[in-house]
Amino acid sequence: MGQDQSSVFDLAAVAAASNGGNNDPLLPPARFIGAPQKPSSMPYTKYVAYDKQVPFDYPERTWPGKKLQRAPRWCSVDLRDGNQALVNPMDSERKLRFWNLLVSMGFKEIEVGFPSASETDFDFIRMLIERELIPDDVTIVVLTQCREHLIRRTYEALRGAKRAVVHFYNSVSVLQREVVFRKNKEEIKKLATDAAELCKSLEGEAKGIDLYYEYSPESFTGTEPEYAVEVCNAVIDVIKPTPEHPMIINLPATVEMTTPNVFADEVEYVSTHLQDRDSIVLSLHPHNDEGMGVAATELAVLAGADRVEGCLLGNGERTGNVDLVTLGLNLLTQGVDPQIDYSNVPEIRKTVEYCNQIKISERHPYAGNFVFTAFSGSHQDAIKKGLEARQVAADRAGANLDDFVWLVPYLPIDPKDIGRTYEAIIRVNSQSGKGGMAYLLKTNHNLDLPKRLQVEFDKIVQKYADETKKEVKDEDIWRLFKDEYLPVEQSGMTAAGVVVGDTHDATLAPWGRLKLLKVAVSSGEDGSDTVLKARVLDRGINVGVDEPREREVSGVGNGPIAAFLNAIANLGIEASVMDYVEHTMSVGTNAMAASYVECQVGSDADAEIIWGVGIDSSITTSALKAIISGINRANRAEER
Amino acid sequence: MGQDQSSVFDLAAVAAASNGGNNDPLLPPARFIGAPQKPSSMPYTKYVAYDKQVPFDYPERTWPGKKLQRAPRWCSVDLRDGNQALVNPMDSERKLRFWNLLVSMGFKEIEVGFPSASETDFDFIRMLIERELIPDDVTIVVLTQCREHLIRRTYEALRGAKRAVVHFYNSVSVLQREVVFRKNKEEIKKLATDAAELCKSLEGEAKGIDLYYEYSPESFTGTEPEYAVEVCNAVIDVIKPTPEHPMIINLPATVEMTTPNVFADEVEYVSTHLQDRDSIVLSLHPHNDEGMGVAATELAVLAGADRVEGCLLGNGERTGNVDLVTLGLNLLTQGVDPQIDYSNVPEIRKTVEYCNQIKISERHPYAGNFVFTAFSGSHQDAIKKGLEARQVAADRAGANLDDFVWLVPYLPIDPKDIGRTYEAIIRVNSQSGKGGMAYLLKTNHNLDLPKRLQVEFDKIVQKYADETKKEVKDEDIWRLFKDEYLPVEQSGMTAAGVVVGDTHDATLAPWGRLKLLKVAVSSGEDGSDTVLKARVLDRGINVGVDEPREREVSGVGNGPIAAFLNAIANLGIEASVMDYVEHTMSVGTNAMAASYVECQVGSDADAEIIWGVGIDSSITTSALKAIISGINRANRAEER
Repeated sequence: MGQDQSSVFDLAAVAAASNGGNNDPLLPPARFIGAPQKPSSMPYTKYVAYDKQVPFDYPERTWPGKKLQRAPRWCSVDLRDGNQALVNPMDSERKLRFWNLLVSMGFKEIEVGFPSASETDFDFIRMLIERELIPDDVTIVVLTQCREHLIRRTYEALRGAKRAVVHFYNSVSVLQREVVFRKNKEEIKKLATDAAELCKSLEGEAKGIDLYYEYSPESFTGTEPEYAVEVCNAVIDVIKPTPEHPMIINLPATVEMTTPNVFADEVEYVSTHLQDRDSIVLSLHPHNDEGMGVAATELAVLAGADRVEGCLLGNGERTGNVDLVTLGLNLLTQGVDPQIDYSNVPEIRKTVEYCNQIKISERHPYAGNFVFTAFSGSHQDAIKKGLEARQVAADRAGANLDDFVWLVPYLPIDPKDIGRTYEAIIRVNSQSGKGGMAYLLKTNHNLDLPKRLQVEFDKIVQKYADETKKEVKDEDIWRLFKDEYLPVEQSGMTAAGVVVGDTHDATLAPWGRLKLLKVAVSSGEDGSDTVLKARVLDRGINVGVDEPREREVSGVGNGPIAAFLNAIANLGIEASVMDYVEHTMSVGTNAMAASYVECQVGSDADAEIIWGVGIDSSITTSALKAIISGINRANRAEER
Repeated sequence: MGQDQSSVFDLAAVAAASNGGNNDPLLPPARFIGAPQKPSSMPYTKYVAYDKQVPFDYPERTWPGKKLQRAPRWCSVDLRDGNQALVNPMDSERKLRFWNLLVSMGFKEIEVGFPSASETDFDFIRMLIERELIPDDVTIVVLTQCREHLIRRTYEALRGAKRAVVHFYNSVSVLQREVVFRKNKEEIKKLATDAAELCKSLEGEAKGIDLYYEYSPESFTGTEPEYAVEVCNAVIDVIKPTPEHPMIINLPATVEMTTPNVFADEVEYVSTHLQDRDSIVLSLHPHNDEGMGVAATELAVLAGADRVEGCLLGNGERTGNVDLVTLGLNLLTQGVDPQIDYSNVPEIRKTVEYCNQIKISERHPYAGNFVFTAFSGSHQDAIKKGLEARQVAADRAGANLDDFVWLVPYLPIDPKDIGRTYEAIIRVNSQSGKGGMAYLLKTNHNLDLPKRLQVEFDKIVQKYADETKKEVKDEDIWRLFKDEYLPVEQSGMTAAGVVVGDTHDATLAPWGRLKLLKVAVSSGEDGSDTVLKARVLDRGINVGVDEPREREVSGVGNGPIAAFLNAIANLGIEASVMDYVEHTMSVGTNAMAASYVECQVGSDADAEIIWGVGIDSSITTSALKAIISGINRANRAEER
């Protein structure tokens, strides 16, 4: 090589020595509260800022003012780049399963392997072709280095294919030119054009195949954009694509090296400086080393890229290739059809995890277990209100709820649209407020608690959460609720979602002074009083100590509640009702009714305000049970 | 509320109905190869593009031309926002462990909880204060909603603290104004200013505390930036911060709703339109719903933000808060001191996973198990050459290698700088080339195979990998190498890293026609011939069938190799040496030597070119063993 072998390190060392770290005297003072941060022991002087490695400025950029308007062309590289990064690469059964998934989702380009480098890949491609598993509208892509025997072997693998893309590459970065290939710019460019010429000269090996080419200036992110364009244009000169028979120029962010706006600048520069642009499909191949692969891709699509290579759920070398699922669903949230079917994310995840033998994170966008959960009380409250408001708006518009415009706080996508459910959204722990508990009781048990009752019951849930320091599951909430408001002998409810008894917790002893055994209510003409007769079991003030007795009581009032209150006054129980709400728990004549009463129990001096809840198929009995629930609770509180 | 309650849905429905999807006739035709993509069944018409939800354009943006030059002020919200998102929130032991980690890493601001909402949080803050666990240069932040009894409770939690930030918030987004709070802009702004006034009026409760405020216009990303500025300025008017006693204005990307360039535009707008900017610490609180939280943060720092709130390794509600580890180490790779100690990422990860009871992904940037692995042959080759070139450059510069400028293909950071090792970098599977195998033999066994020997041995490794379809571990490679080149009876080597015998694989039978038992070499004056006498065990051409015999042989030549070749000609073995390389395997007089010979074995007609390898403390014996290795291998090949 003509140039000094150590130049890249020498230049870098000079640049690194000038690193300002956080102590650059030219920077304005940092704003903070309290004490300043301190320098760390991290060796920042051995790293070189990207703009000193690859100086490039592109003030002509137009991409920051653009919007995503349509899906790019997608190419899955799961079976090649993804597979190459696995501890245990896929066997042919796993590869076929992944292939079937990709085809069923609608991918029209699939990179299937590196057949000249791997017998498994070669055999897999032969199987796809010989068993005619490639639909007419799907194009396979195969990767090869540009050496004659490897290309010949690649074409052998393709024999009998209808259409294929031969993807060749060489690394063109500043660093690799020097330390790996030890060649100068002209020599590296010649590697690319020689490769292109070799491919062209061997086309005879590919008779009958509708053959296309893809060229990657590998390690593009470590390359001067002007030089990358020079190499690509030289390759284009050899391949001679046309608008009718284009070629792919693919820009790999082989290593993600800086903020995505810089990548977008580079891509816009290439897009506007490539020759025969109408004959070029400009493609991206982003990795995720700095955790910004998705952003780099979206900004570079704004900057002019036509096509994106990536992997499902971000598998791939090191930190992975860009995640196609996230990209596609991000488009969906912007009202753009991703042109790929992501309607069953759980199934996609299951297949991907099986094939790759790697689990994704609980917080992976769209697909992770926790991404539709809300533990915070204010979030839960907002989601609950948002879902209700959307229902109201849809009803008013006469629209089908599932199709109606999606605007819900904290949920950027309707979980149902990607095969997930609302079930796991609202979760309760010691950090949650009453909203979550109320939502769960409503959703899973058809109980729509009045606000002040929510406040009352929330204290019980929070106490339990603070004590156990664990998530409070729906079944815990339901158990706590039953124990608090529905004395356990009050069983036999069968309405949907309300089963008492079979989730009975043996640790909870039955309790409650009163139990309603029988009730008869009669009222005459309009305006006349209601007469109520009831038989109750009275277990006394000291339940379990006093002798239980069955008592017949009767009372008169302007309705059953007033009559019942008068009736139990005969037992020495002083109670009045301050608030009362009742609702049906389902549709139809067999529906159960839930009643909530806020009672004042006791004499004025030591009166207690307390809620009671009753559930029954009779709206009357339900209300009376609610009063009994309140009285029993007041009694229990005194016992404690 | 004055306005029509359904307006947000109505406007959204109109916007969604106009979604072009991918079929907008105004778009230029999409470029592709093969068949076009097809519309999917995804319900894109129910989603509304961000710019139709929050219309905003900011062509005055300057951030795309800026570079990251110093660390922002960091605030960990692991103990509050992160904790709130856990299925099982931390108990006080876990909270304390996390706190100690954060303090030891150098965080100067730590949000410690929501004391008015959680007894656990309250008790934890009391413990920090009463046990004097807060260093003088660390400031705690506590979150509260702005209601009098909650603020009183918050100040109770802070009693005795030296310095604290009271962080209050209300949601100001278009959607939440309407569906959650049902208030108009003025009313929502009043919630914020009322809250600020309430805080100020209750300052008496916080006697002796150096008290600061933080205000968050929550759901900032769903808010018109102009309105967010209006609310923030109104709050600033009440709080009246000064450059000497600033306040924090914190912009939450509560939900990530679009590409990060738009967030950066919004932040630059706020930064340039806030009043009393010199008295404001402008902060970010990004989430990761679209997988772009890291990018959004970095671009918004370019846009003028001073401070970043996030969690270690990206814990937090749903898809998580922005990951502070990735942000910090991204800065390091740009030559900027992160001002946080990330020198032991494995230990950080261990503590975070223990406290959160959530595992991170294998591909998590910097911290995942696989992020420093390279399975691809070309990557392995480049890494190997890059590490070698760096060593050469460091030697020439007389620099300590650990401090020397880091430029290695495919490795954006030196694993050693963050407490990881090179060990796991090079991994071999059926997708790998010879580079990986050669690297492992060199690194772990001190054997630097000549290139043509690498090609020869790689076929054996690839055959094994294709058959087993699993990762080929270092021990597999070493076993294959020994069996192929070092007949198993050639034991007794003790140099570091080279142990034959105790990793002996019982499935491999001993083999080899010849074994060197004893050798004597004598040479006279310069230029005179070498005379060699050797005793060898000859087990015949059919090993195990022929009767083994000890043979004395002698030969003369211009050196030991030539003499030995002549000597074994007496056994009827025709061999010549075509290439020969020898190197010491370690430093010092007890070092072992490794020899590699490329031999032609047999008569010219059916001659075979084959490599042999020998290891011995004597450089002479090592060479002769290598010749015997070659001859034995040729014989074995014939047997097969």
